[in-house]
Order: sequence, then C-alpha cells, then structure tokens
Amino acid sequence: MRRTFLSIEGGEGAGKSTVIAAIVQALSDRGRDVVATREPGGTAAGEAIRALLLDPARTLAPETELLLMFAARAQLVREVILPALDRGAAVVTDRFTDASFAYQGGGRGIDAGRIAELERWAAGIKPDLTFLLDVGVDEGLARARSRGGEPDRIERERGDFFERVRGTYLARAAAEPARFRVIDASQSADAVVTAVRAALNDWLDRE
Amino acid sequence: MRRTFLSIEGGEGAGKSTVIAAIVQALSDRGRDVVATREPGGTAAGEAIRALLLDPARTLAPETELLLMFAARAQLVREVILPALDRGAAVVTDRFTDASFAYQGGGRGIDAGRIAELERWAAGIKPDLTFLLDVGVDEGLARARSRGGEPDRIERERGDFFERVRGTYLARAAAEPARFRVIDASQSADAVVTAVRAALNDWLDRE
Ligand SMILES: Nc1ncnc2c1ncn2[C@@H]1O[C@H](COP(=O)(O)OP(=O)(O)OP(=O)(O)O)[C@@H](O)[C@H]1O
Ligand SMILES: Nc1ncnc2c1ncn2[C@@H]1O[C@H](COP(=O)(O)OP(=O)(O)OP(=O)(O)O)[C@@H](O)[C@H]1O
Ligand SMILES: [Mg+2]
Ligand SMILES: [Mg+2]
Repeated sequence: MRRTFLSIEGGEGAGKSTVIAAIVQALSDRGRDVVATREPGGTAAGEAIRALLLDPARTLAPETELLLMFAARAQLVREVILPALDRGAAVVTDRFTDASFAYQGGGRGIDAGRIAELERWAAGIKPDLTFLLDVGVDEGLARARSRGGEPDRIERERGDFFERVRGTYLARAAAEPARFRVIDASQSADAVVTAVRAALNDWLDRE
Repeated sequence: MRRTFLSIEGGEGAGKSTVIAAIVQALSDRGRDVVATREPGGTAAGEAIRALLLDPARTLAPETELLLMFAARAQLVREVILPALDRGAAVVTDRFTDASFAYQGGGRGIDAGRIAELERWAAGIKPDLTFLLDVGVDEGLARARSRGGEPDRIERERGDFFERVRGTYLARAAAEPARFRVIDASQSADAVVTAVRAALNDWLDRE
C-alpha cells in the first residue's frame, strides 16, 4: 500500500475544508483508515500555538511567525502524522510546509532557503500528493468572509499579501508537478470536489 | 559608549535573579539606562510561549521546544533588545541563546550546528558579556525548590539532564573566554554578587 500523506493548500476561502471532507469520504470508501488534521494546530501544543498565531491583538515579527509555524508542525509530525502513517493510515492535512513558503516566504518575504532548511529537520517529511485549490484572491476572501466571524490576524492582511501568497503557491506547483495537482477552485464546490476525487482516485490507482 | 548587552546564565537556582538585581543596580549607579528582561518571555508573545514551554502538563518534542525558544527569542530581540541597545540603554537578560545550547543541545541532544544556524538568523545578536553562574546540580535544585511552588516542565527533568546542561555551559565558557565570566555560585549570595560586580566594573572600565 502506497504511503498516503496528502496536503490541501490554497488561500483563504479557497475551499480547503470543503475538499477535505470529500477526501476523507473517498478514502474511507476505499476502506482506508484516515486521519484528518490541520495546521497550525492538530495537537494540544499546536492548537495553543495556533491561538497565538491567529490572535488579531498580537504583534509577531515574521521570524517569530515562521518559528511558531514550524514549532506546531514539528509537534504535529511527531505526535500525529508519523504514527498514523506508520500504522498504515492515510493522513490528510489542511495545509503543510507549502503554506510556510507561501505565507511566510512569499507573503512576509522570508528567504525560501531558510524555510527549506527548517523543512528538512523540523518537518522532515513532505506530502506524497498536494492539492492546490487556486482561486482569485478577492473571490476567496469574499467566501471566507461570508462565513461570518471576525477576521483573524492573517486574514487582516492586505490584498497584495495574498497575491504574493497565490503566486508562490502556483510557482511551487509548477516546480513540483509530480506532487501537485492544481485545481481551479473558482468552479462550483461540486465541480471542485469532482475534480479532486478524480485526481485522487487516479493517484491511488497507480500505487 | 560600549554596547552593553549582558546575559546571565546558569542552571536552576544558580542565583540568576539575585545577580540580575545587583547588575541593574550597578549599571544604574553608573548612570546607565538599563532594560532587564528574561527568556523565554519578555514580550507579550514571549510570555505566552513561556507559559506553553513551562506547563508541566504539555508534551513537547525536543524540536518543538527548540523552535518555541527561538520564536520567543526572535520576538524579544526585535521588540525589546535591539530598540533598547539602539537608544544606548544597557540590556541585561536572564538567559539567552547559550541556554538553548545547554538545555536543548546538551540536555535534549539536539545538534549544536542546528542551534547555531537558528542563532544566526532568528537571534542575530550575541551578548557582549555573559556571566555563567556555576553551581552543583543538587545545590541549585535545592535552592530552586526552597522557593516553593510546583516545579515547571523543565525543572521536572532528571539529574543527568542537568549535569549535561552544566557541562555544556562550562564547555561554551571555555570555548569563548573573552565573552564569558564563570562565577563560582556555590559561594554565599553576597560573595557571588561581589564577584559579579567586580567583573562587570572591570569590563565597563575597559570601554
Ligand atoms: N467552490 C466553491 N464555490 C463557492 N463557494 C464555496 C466553494 N468551496 C467552498 N465554498 C464556500 O466558501 C466558504 C469557504 O470554504 P471553506 O471553508 O471550505 O474554505 P477554506 O479554504 O477551508 O477556508 P479557510 O482558509 O478560511 O479555512 C464556505 O462557506 C464554503 O461553503
Ligand atoms: N549564592 C547563593 N547561596 C545560597 N542561596 C542563594 C544564592 N543565590 C541565590 N540564592 C537563593 O536561592 C534561591 C534561587 O535563587 P535565584 O532565584 O536567584 O536563582 P535563579 O537562578 O534565578 O533560579 P531560577 O533558575 O529558578 O530562575 C533563592 O531563594 C535565592 O535567595
Ligand atoms: Mg478551512
Ligand atoms: Mg530566576
């Protein structure tokens, strides 16, 4: 059985949560144990770090933000992801290291080499397959806002921040076509889910 | 005026807080503005990270612990230390990067090269003068316990952990004799404070 570590990436409101529910269902339908998790978070320590990262009242230097993201990730890998993969479960995560390249790298301007260095030892694992849900920045933000609630610290960033995030995601997908599936997330939710399921089944059938 | 960034290092109960009060007084007596801070902590984000790090109920992988320490440090450097030094104030900190080499390196076994890498970009600054308060592990732990209160997550470690911490501190001091002053902290508090004041005045007078 092929190691199945999947990450779902994309900007605010791209439809990640919606797609993850469909992926969990598809994997269960194939008889797989599935562990779904999210970043930052997914462990007790990670959720405490998430609260710190998203609190709109906090001031965080870009380096602090990057280190907190990797602190949560280091814990998630060791406490949840590796044990689940070791026992043969599929793992689906709402964001992983690509999000640090996109947000702290593209968005905040931290050097990609520095992030790659942390990726090697703090994460130490890459997803086997990554779905990038790509949608225009304004459309994504409008969807995220339609859910209501106060915008978090990162959702309060300006439009050009999210344009850089989107551009970095697309550049990473172009550089690693074997790992990435870019999905046009401006389509209806049904069409997005159908495209993701098809790409996932295709990938699983090649194992 | 010589840049005056001082760190005070040592194991649990070595007498760091006691010495810092005396250093702040000595610098004030010389007419210096002084900013005293501590690690992990010293900023709003850093104190939240400190709570996470010291909570005895938390499980943290060594890598998570290291990244959280540097997240708090990155914030402290940018929010407190550099602005204070820039306006000519002296900065005295209760622990700095040497503590990561001692605790997460020596204590937890993380490779020193990795910590040095984080030191370069996340901290980006080294103390000008470091006092290492050296005392036997049992004596230090007994002092720390005598203050009462529940031991924190790190104070709950075993004796051999603290022996490795002490050994790493001493090795670092031996490798950087120009920066370090090793103080025999098994002496009375008065004798320790007298030794620290003498070494500090000597250093300041050489500016
Ligand atoms: N393809 C789509 N077209 C229109 N609306 C969508 C689509 N996908 C999801 N939505 C809706 O947009 C909102 C955001 O979707 P979802 O929560 O799945 O996105 P997300 O990427 O997880 O967002 P966040 O980044 O905030 O976690 C929800 O109200 C969802 O029902
Ligand atoms: N040289 C000394 N001899 C005996 N007792 C001391 C000495 N220095 C400090 N103490 C006492 O030991 C206790 C610990 O000292 P202090 O709080 O200064 O240490 P610390 O290194 O800051 O500890 P911690 O690592 O817990 O922050 C205090 O009760 C203090 O009064
Ligand atoms: Mg979501
Ligand atoms: Mg103290």
